[in-house]
Amino acid sequence: MTNDQLSQTFHALSDPTRRAMLARLSQGEINVSDLAKPFLKDMSLPAVTKHLKVLENAGLVTKSKDAQYRPCKLNGTPLKDANDWMETYRQYWEDSLDRLGEYLKTVTAKEKEPKKKKSTKGKNHGRKK
Amino acid sequence: MTNDQLSQTFHALSDPTRRAMLARLSQGEINVSDLAKPFLKDMSLPAVTKHLKVLENAGLVTKSKDAQYRPCKLNGTPLKDANDWMETYRQYWEDSLDRLGEYLKTVTAKEKEPKKKKSTKGKNHGRKK
Repeated sequence: MTNDQLSQTFHALSDPTRRAMLARLSQGEINVSDLAKPFLKDMSLPAVTKHLKVLENAGLVTKSKDAQYRPCKLNGTPLKDANDWMETYRQYWEDSLDRLGEYLKTVTAKEKEPKKKKSTKGKNHGRKK
Repeated sequence: MTNDQLSQTFHALSDPTRRAMLARLSQGEINVSDLAKPFLKDMSLPAVTKHLKVLENAGLVTKSKDAQYRPCKLNGTPLKDANDWMETYRQYWEDSLDRLGEYLKTVTAKEKEPKKKKSTKGKNHGRKK
């Protein structure tokens, strides 16, 4: 892992535990031990601490210096650059979705075609009876 | 690194070489050896191949099966989910920027204030003379 800010941001986001921590922090400030608690079912305290450290190093989480409470806070600023980077590729996912849309239209049109013929035949047959 | 799609996408983006590869691919299809060439100044061929493999595993690059030419192509679809995830945090970077904007306004206002007082004093002093 390289140390440029953008790489650090994407690296921090590349783990479901860290994304879950950010989701928790998006609800408001919380102290370290309360933030860690739900994750301790699945992993050790050092593992949780390491994940939090990755988020802090990326600047996504800031810890207050209040020694008694030590609340953690979400800082969204690094996400701005990550989002800006992603925006430059917007046409590539929109193009893919457009192509998928076009493909689905073709498939649906083809599927409708034989059905119509069948139902017309059915109706005619019914009328003849 | 976990294997869920979103983690794989963010992991693939967490390296400047891999982002540079995507930037090159955004200009159009290119065969593997031409894509690798500029990176071979700084790293070995196995290292370049490994980076490309990470992009392929994340579904961001697809390789054609044309054995002679083997063109690589950028596939933006995985970026859609990554962008959607990021959008849910938009308020956090916009809030940060708003707060920075407010802070800068305060600082600028404070900087203007003493200058005005000084110049007023100067004027009065001048008038008294």
